Amino acid sequence: MASTANSERKKSIEQLIAPISNDLLSGSAEIALQGMTVFKSILSSANSDADEIKADIEFASQLLIESQPAMASIFNISTSLVKTISGISSAETIKSESNKVLDHFEKLLCDSAASIADFAINLMPPGEMIFAYSFSSTVVSSLLSAKAKGRYFRVVCPESRPSMEGRKLATRLASAGIEVIYTFDSAMGMLLPSCGVAFMGCDSIGAPGLVNKTGSFLLALACHELKIPLYALCDTTKFINEERFFEFENHHRLGSEIWADPPPEVLIVNKQFELIPFDYITGLVTEDGVFTKTDLTKYISKMNNESASANLSTVKIHK
Amino acid sequence: MASTANSERKKSIEQLIAPISNDLLSGSAEIALQGMTVFKSILSSANSDADEIKADIEFASQLLIESQPAMASIFNISTSLVKTISGISSAETIKSESNKVLDHFEKLLCDSAASIADFAINLMPPGEMIFAYSFSSTVVSSLLSAKAKGRYFRVVCPESRPSMEGRKLATRLASAGIEVIYTFDSAMGMLLPSCGVAFMGCDSIGAPGLVNKTGSFLLALACHELKIPLYALCDTTKFINEERFFEFENHHRLGSEIWADPPPEVLIVNKQFELIPFDYITGLVTEDGVFTKTDLTKYISKMNNESASANLSTVKIHK
Repeated sequence: MASTANSERKKSIEQLIAPISNDLLSGSAEIALQGMTVFKSILSSANSDADEIKADIEFASQLLIESQPAMASIFNISTSLVKTISGISSAETIKSESNKVLDHFEKLLCDSAASIADFAINLMPPGEMIFAYSFSSTVVSSLLSAKAKGRYFRVVCPESRPSMEGRKLATRLASAGIEVIYTFDSAMGMLLPSCGVAFMGCDSIGAPGLVNKTGSFLLALACHELKIPLYALCDTTKFINEERFFEFENHHRLGSEIWADPPPEVLIVNKQFELIPFDYITGLVTEDGVFTKTDLTKYISKMNNESASANLSTVKIHK
Repeated sequence: MASTANSERKKSIEQLIAPISNDLLSGSAEIALQGMTVFKSILSSANSDADEIKADIEFASQLLIESQPAMASIFNISTSLVKTISGISSAETIKSESNKVLDHFEKLLCDSAASIADFAINLMPPGEMIFAYSFSSTVVSSLLSAKAKGRYFRVVCPESRPSMEGRKLATRLASAGIEVIYTFDSAMGMLLPSCGVAFMGCDSIGAPGLVNKTGSFLLALACHELKIPLYALCDTTKFINEERFFEFENHHRLGSEIWADPPPEVLIVNKQFELIPFDYITGLVTEDGVFTKTDLTKYISKMNNESASANLSTVKIHK
C-alpha cells in the first residue's frame, strides 16, 4: 500500500513538472519561479510524515534539475532546499524551513530584478536602439522599468529559431508601449550596427563563461567585431560550480524541430544552449553590480575554492 | 488589332518571368540561366517584325531586372542584349546576334563555374569541415567538383530563414554523397569554430562591397572575429557599376513571411539582401582568379572610370 501511494505521489509530481520540462519560451528566472511553485504545491498538500515530504522534495528536485539542465537557478534552489531539510526529522519544521528557503529565493529573484534594472538603465545610451536576444524576464523587467522612468528607446529583437521566443519578447514589450523592430535571426548583422547596446539573459555562469540560448555566441561575436557593448543581465543564483557547469551540453532537442523530413544523409544539430566566453561580453549585470571579466574570474575562482574546501557539491554563492 | 497583339505578347512574357520573380531559392547564376531561357523562348517564337522583337526583348529585359533587383548577372546580360540589337533593323540579324550574346554568356557562366571550382579546391584545407551559406550554384559546383576529385570533407549548412534555401543546398550536396551537417541560422557561431573555411555565393559586386542573401554579413563578422577564411565564389558577370549598385535595397519582402500575426505595434523587417564590405571577406573567387580587397578596389575603380568616360549606363566588365 505504501509503495502504491508512493508511486502515485511521484506521478502527480511528474505531472506538475512536465510543463516546465517542455517550456522552451521562458527565461531562466521564470523557470526558477515555476520550480518554486512546484515545491510550494508539494509542501502545502503534504501530510505529517517527515520522510515522505523529504522523499517528495528530493524527487521533485531531481526531476526539475533534469528537466532544465542548463538552468543554474533551478539547480541552486533545489539543492539548497534539499540540503536545508536533510537533517530535520519533524514534518512541521521541514515545512517551515522549506518555506523560508523558498521565500528567500523568491525575494532574492524579485529584488535582484529591480536592482539589475537600476544598473541597466545607465547602460542604455539615450535615444539609441537596444538589441535584445532570446527571452529573459530580467531583460524584460529592465526595459519596462526604463520605459516607466520615461526613457524613450526602440528594441530590435530577432525571432530566435527554433523556439521563437523572440515573439514572446516582442509581444511583451509591445504591450507595454515599447516600439519593437522584429526580424529573422540572420538579419542580426543588418540591424546591430544601428543599436547602441545589446542585452541578453543568462542561464548559468561558471569559469568557462556564460551559458545562454544558442545564437548568443553569434550575437557576441558580431557585437565584439562591431564594438557594440553587450551585457548579460542575471541575478547571482546563476553562478554554478565546475562539476555542474557543462550539463547544458546535454540539452539536445529533436532534429525534426528544425527539419521534419531531411534526406537521410543529413545530420541535424539542434542544441538549445551554448557557451559564451567572458572575452566576448562587456559585462554581467547582477544585483551586486556590473561585473567585468576580471571581477568574474576572481569571483568564480573564490567560489570554486570555497566549494572544494567545504567538499560540497553545491556552493554558497551569495556574498 | 496591333495593340491587342502587343498586350497579349506582354502577358505571355510576364507569365514566363513570373516564376523567376517568385524564386527565392536559386542563386544568382541559376537565375541568370533562367533569364536567358526567357530570351531564347521569345526569339524562337518571334515572327519577322524587327520592331516587335526589339520591343519584346526590351520589355522582358526590364521585367527581369525588376524581378530580381539584387542580381547583377541578369542586369548585365539583359542590358548587353538590348544594346547589341538596338541598331539592327533586320529581324533575322536581331535573332542571330541575340543568340550570339546569349551563347556567349551561357558559355561564360559554365566555363566560369569550372574555373572557380579549380581555384576553390585549393582553398579547402584537407579533411576540414567547410561552412556554406545560403544557396549558390557556383558553391555547389565547386563542392561537387572537389568531391569528384576525391576530396573528403563535410559541409555545415544553416537553413537560411526565411526562404530556407539551405535545405536545397543540403539536399543537393547529400544527393552527391557529401556528408552534411544542418542546423538553424543562429547556431552558426556554435559550428563555425569547427570549420576550416567558409564559402558563400554573391549576387552583385561594386565599390561598396558584395551583395548577398541576408545573413552573409553576420557570417562575415563571425568569420572575421574567429579568423576563419571566408570566400565569395562568383563569376565576373556579377560586377555592377555605381548607378545600379544599391538596387538590392529595394528587395523588401512581406513581414508576414516572418510572422503572420504580430501585434500591431511590432514593425517587421524582411530584407532579402545585404551588403558585405570587402574588409570582411578573405577573397573573391572568380574565373579570373582569387581577388583580394586591393585587387577588387583597383578593378572596380577602373570599371567605373571606363563607364564614366564612355558615358554608358552599363559597363564592359570582361577583361
